[in-house]
Amino acid sequence: MIDKKHYFDWAATAPQDSDILHEALDYSLEHWGNPSSIHLAGSDAHKALDDTRAKCAATLGVKPEQLYFTSGGTEGDHIPLLAMLTRPQKGSVAISALEHGALREMAKMMTNCGWRVITIPSDKDGFITPEAVIHSLAEDTVYVTVMAVNNETGAIQPIYEIADALEQHCAGKRKPFFHVDCVQAAGKIPLDLRHPGIDSASFSAHKICGPRGIGLLYLAKEINPFLRGGGQEKNIRSGTENIFGARAFALCLEKYFITKKNETATKRFEEQSAYTSNFIRQLRSIPQCSIIPHGRNTDELRAETFSPWVVQAAFHGIPGQVMVRALSSQGFFISTGSACSAGKQSRPILDAMQVSADEKETAVRFSFGPTTTSDDMEELFKAVQNISAQFNK
Amino acid sequence: MIDKKHYFDWAATAPQDSDILHEALDYSLEHWGNPSSIHLAGSDAHKALDDTRAKCAATLGVKPEQLYFTSGGTEGDHIPLLAMLTRPQKGSVAISALEHGALREMAKMMTNCGWRVITIPSDKDGFITPEAVIHSLAEDTVYVTVMAVNNETGAIQPIYEIADALEQHCAGKRKPFFHVDCVQAAGKIPLDLRHPGIDSASFSAHKICGPRGIGLLYLAKEINPFLRGGGQEKNIRSGTENIFGARAFALCLEKYFITKKNETATKRFEEQSAYTSNFIRQLRSIPQCSIIPHGRNTDELRAETFSPWVVQAAFHGIPGQVMVRALSSQGFFISTGSACSAGKQSRPILDAMQVSADEKETAVRFSFGPTTTSDDMEELFKAVQNISAQFNK
Repeated sequence: MIDKKHYFDWAATAPQDSDILHEALDYSLEHWGNPSSIHLAGSDAHKALDDTRAKCAATLGVKPEQLYFTSGGTEGDHIPLLAMLTRPQKGSVAISALEHGALREMAKMMTNCGWRVITIPSDKDGFITPEAVIHSLAEDTVYVTVMAVNNETGAIQPIYEIADALEQHCAGKRKPFFHVDCVQAAGKIPLDLRHPGIDSASFSAHKICGPRGIGLLYLAKEINPFLRGGGQEKNIRSGTENIFGARAFALCLEKYFITKKNETATKRFEEQSAYTSNFIRQLRSIPQCSIIPHGRNTDELRAETFSPWVVQAAFHGIPGQVMVRALSSQGFFISTGSACSAGKQSRPILDAMQVSADEKETAVRFSFGPTTTSDDMEELFKAVQNISAQFNK
Repeated sequence: MIDKKHYFDWAATAPQDSDILHEALDYSLEHWGNPSSIHLAGSDAHKALDDTRAKCAATLGVKPEQLYFTSGGTEGDHIPLLAMLTRPQKGSVAISALEHGALREMAKMMTNCGWRVITIPSDKDGFITPEAVIHSLAEDTVYVTVMAVNNETGAIQPIYEIADALEQHCAGKRKPFFHVDCVQAAGKIPLDLRHPGIDSASFSAHKICGPRGIGLLYLAKEINPFLRGGGQEKNIRSGTENIFGARAFALCLEKYFITKKNETATKRFEEQSAYTSNFIRQLRSIPQCSIIPHGRNTDELRAETFSPWVVQAAFHGIPGQVMVRALSSQGFFISTGSACSAGKQSRPILDAMQVSADEKETAVRFSFGPTTTSDDMEELFKAVQNISAQFNK
């Protein structure tokens, strides 16, 4: 088995929590029926699913009936977006320039159905401002999406301010639906889904040590879904319910989601903030290194507006893929950009930030997780420093 | 835990194969990286996924590059259907009247995007004939779907003859895309995906003792997908790959899929054919019972044209839900219709067969699986006989 000690690519996927997955598997073997069946085996499974949903709701601070299990972050992003296709009139959807492909690429396809896509521009620091959102709206914009935490830079987007700005701007008129992709935020920063004006939010279990193939969609109110089938999850997500995945996700949320009650997760968040501040200070000592973005780069501004679990940095003269492979050969695992686009050369997030071609080619992402220690990060820094020194000869 | 001994609702879901699920979980914990990552942990996971796909391909008798992991049967049905939305010209899709909601309900939603839905009628015995398919085609029909085995009656549809008829009818012109939902066929009857003219086929693991949340899509050739995201699975199914689910599915296919090489599965199929013939003969001795459909009801015709794993029968004077609950209270689990529609009163499949209102209300489904024994079926028959006798007083 590949050693996990020097894994710094948690934003791509988190190593699974073995205890939780085994517990969830036993739970699903115990409650083996189809939750939709009306016989005793079905109602037993249905109760197990209800109990699991209630656990998730308690952790996320929302009502159980506002949560829908999905197959992952991608589907959780698709459902509210594609629901627009059921509207009687075609219009436009506004997608932030920093979104994951699950939203950016899906929205593009809606042009096949007569819809327009508006891209909400990012500033150079990788933030979507409320002003940029409001300025982007067209008369026929019925949907807006801005992610909570960017997967490449860790920039915490002002989602509450955007929700407020949309409410104010649209006072009296019908407000566009506002979706927030929380895949990189859950378990990474405190989140308040109850903030007025957040209409939906998507989550993925595998980013917080859960299994792949399970996600959660929060919907403030029910919607008219486009994707249809057997009608499970109150018709919002069809397909036989995955009790193993749901249970594992519930247990991961309890363990890793940052709430006031969860002292372990809160303490870990604070610890990581200190580790990451220190790591960034160390990186700055490497001559070729520049932290991306360049702005908001004081310790205080970073602590306020960036997730401590992600750092994007460029190493002048060292192509990102070279750095990734050089580190990998020493057992250190980082990435260029998102895993989804790892095989491709495009960096749409950095493009949106107008990062220079040189930096774009040499940028890499470091990302951390619950089991990362300050010693691990020290070793990572030394490995990066050594590789940089070799290229500086 | 609810006892599985008298579970006769395998068409809804199969109790999971505990050994296989535990083995697959260990495998996914061993290969813990994101298959899209370019570092060593990623390439290790990628190899594990490739190996798993190759196993599935070997069992199904197709090329590995023709298989795509999905989140289940519903998504496997959606992908080729929704791909039609990427065509430059709108047209019509022809859906058999017997399809699962994943196709029937999804197709209806495409009318929001300017598409037309043609329903291919069923005959009274619950079969879609090649003639009915050809007769239904319009000039602009670009997609046809007929399932391999109906989930409510077990009727084996003439998919090869339909594929041939489409090829012949469209000689020289562009043939409509032909999709086959194999969810109730895999592991239940022999299947030949290589038959010319079958363009895609969908599979679900949880119907053959695998986990929920994992499916397979077979595509004879690549398509232009509508649903988009991170671009995994060669852009056909976006979302971080579920190695646990994929591995478990591969192992279930090896164990349960009926091929010439798989003597255990072949023998079990023949055994079940005998059990079910006997069960049907026994049911006929109950005064209120009629087997659905009424036609093709000799032993020979049933053996040729029905899956031995499903029996639909009506019990005059006993509402289906009453029979299900009466049996459930004795620990026998059967269903009315599909689990997806268990909570609803509608029976679209029986409607399509023009089954009488009385029979529709009193119809139930018995379905069987690998661990069903003749003794279990004998006990099921006695329980059904006793309940029927009580209603006959």
